[in-house]
Amino acid sequence: MVSRQYTNKREERYRTAMKRYQKDRQRNVLAQPGEHSFILVLDNLQAGFNVPKIFRSAEAFGAHEIHLINVGPFDPAPAKGAFRKVPAKFYNNIEDCFEQLKARGYTLFTLEADKGKTLFQAKLPEKSAFILGNEDSGMSFDTASYPDVECLSIPHFGVTESLNVSIAASIVMYEYISQHQE
Amino acid sequence: MVSRQYTNKREERYRTAMKRYQKDRQRNVLAQPGEHSFILVLDNLQAGFNVPKIFRSAEAFGAHEIHLINVGPFDPAPAKGAFRKVPAKFYNNIEDCFEQLKARGYTLFTLEADKGKTLFQAKLPEKSAFILGNEDSGMSFDTASYPDVECLSIPHFGVTESLNVSIAASIVMYEYISQHQE
Repeated sequence: MVSRQYTNKREERYRTAMKRYQKDRQRNVLAQPGEHSFILVLDNLQAGFNVPKIFRSAEAFGAHEIHLINVGPFDPAPAKGAFRKVPAKFYNNIEDCFEQLKARGYTLFTLEADKGKTLFQAKLPEKSAFILGNEDSGMSFDTASYPDVECLSIPHFGVTESLNVSIAASIVMYEYISQHQE
Repeated sequence: MVSRQYTNKREERYRTAMKRYQKDRQRNVLAQPGEHSFILVLDNLQAGFNVPKIFRSAEAFGAHEIHLINVGPFDPAPAKGAFRKVPAKFYNNIEDCFEQLKARGYTLFTLEADKGKTLFQAKLPEKSAFILGNEDSGMSFDTASYPDVECLSIPHFGVTESLNVSIAASIVMYEYISQHQE
């Protein structure tokens, strides 16, 4: 049996996290793009630790923006302040996000296990947008229905099917930066 | 006030995690090296989530071994089974680990923020061992006293001082693999 005190403690922690989220989200409107042009698209990610961790790495790698599609309020603590610093755009559906990115000249890439070219083979344009799917269910859309979207995969060698999404995000940012270094 | 039921619940979770650790550690003696020759050295990392996460990525990238120096028992759940699969070697001090690796022909590299060559510039030999330091205090030793150890850093562009250690580990493995692909 879960005690009331245990439940209260959890609820209190949740409320504090949500206050942090609201505060950081408000400050995010003043965030400035980093020095690189790439954008991350978080497609229906869980409102857990991965989203703030991706903000932390994105800030370190100088991301331009992060687009969040149907991502609920999350505890920004693991972002170490980066949820205030990397410009965040919120969407309720992926079409609106894709339309906006395409209008701005972005090439869209999904990152999935064993699909399409590997990252080693891909030439990443300056305006690259990398789409990362849900931890369990992957992309929320069928890539076959979006001919504009290119598929990329991170080479892997073990039995493990896929890397954690925050690890995958960091690796694609690293590859982008290594291709665009001066 | 923290209730007794709350404390009991935490203790129960800890005991279950420790049982998983003992079980996986026993099975680890049968683990086989992955298809790459690189080795990770975890220098006094906290016995938290980062260690099992590093096992998960190391398995995906085909690591040869992971050496753990003064790393206490951790919950292997975030490793998704990889703590059973990547050969683990345990040490109480870094000298024993370094002696062993040097005797086997390994070049030792630290990974720290803003120290030494960046990963983009480094040529990583086949027998590379990458040392990752504690989340808060970094390396447990002074690199100046170890002339055999080379310093590497991951290029970063934001205000954030350093990447999470499990992210840093994945990026160096990715760079190694990209240099050693056939």
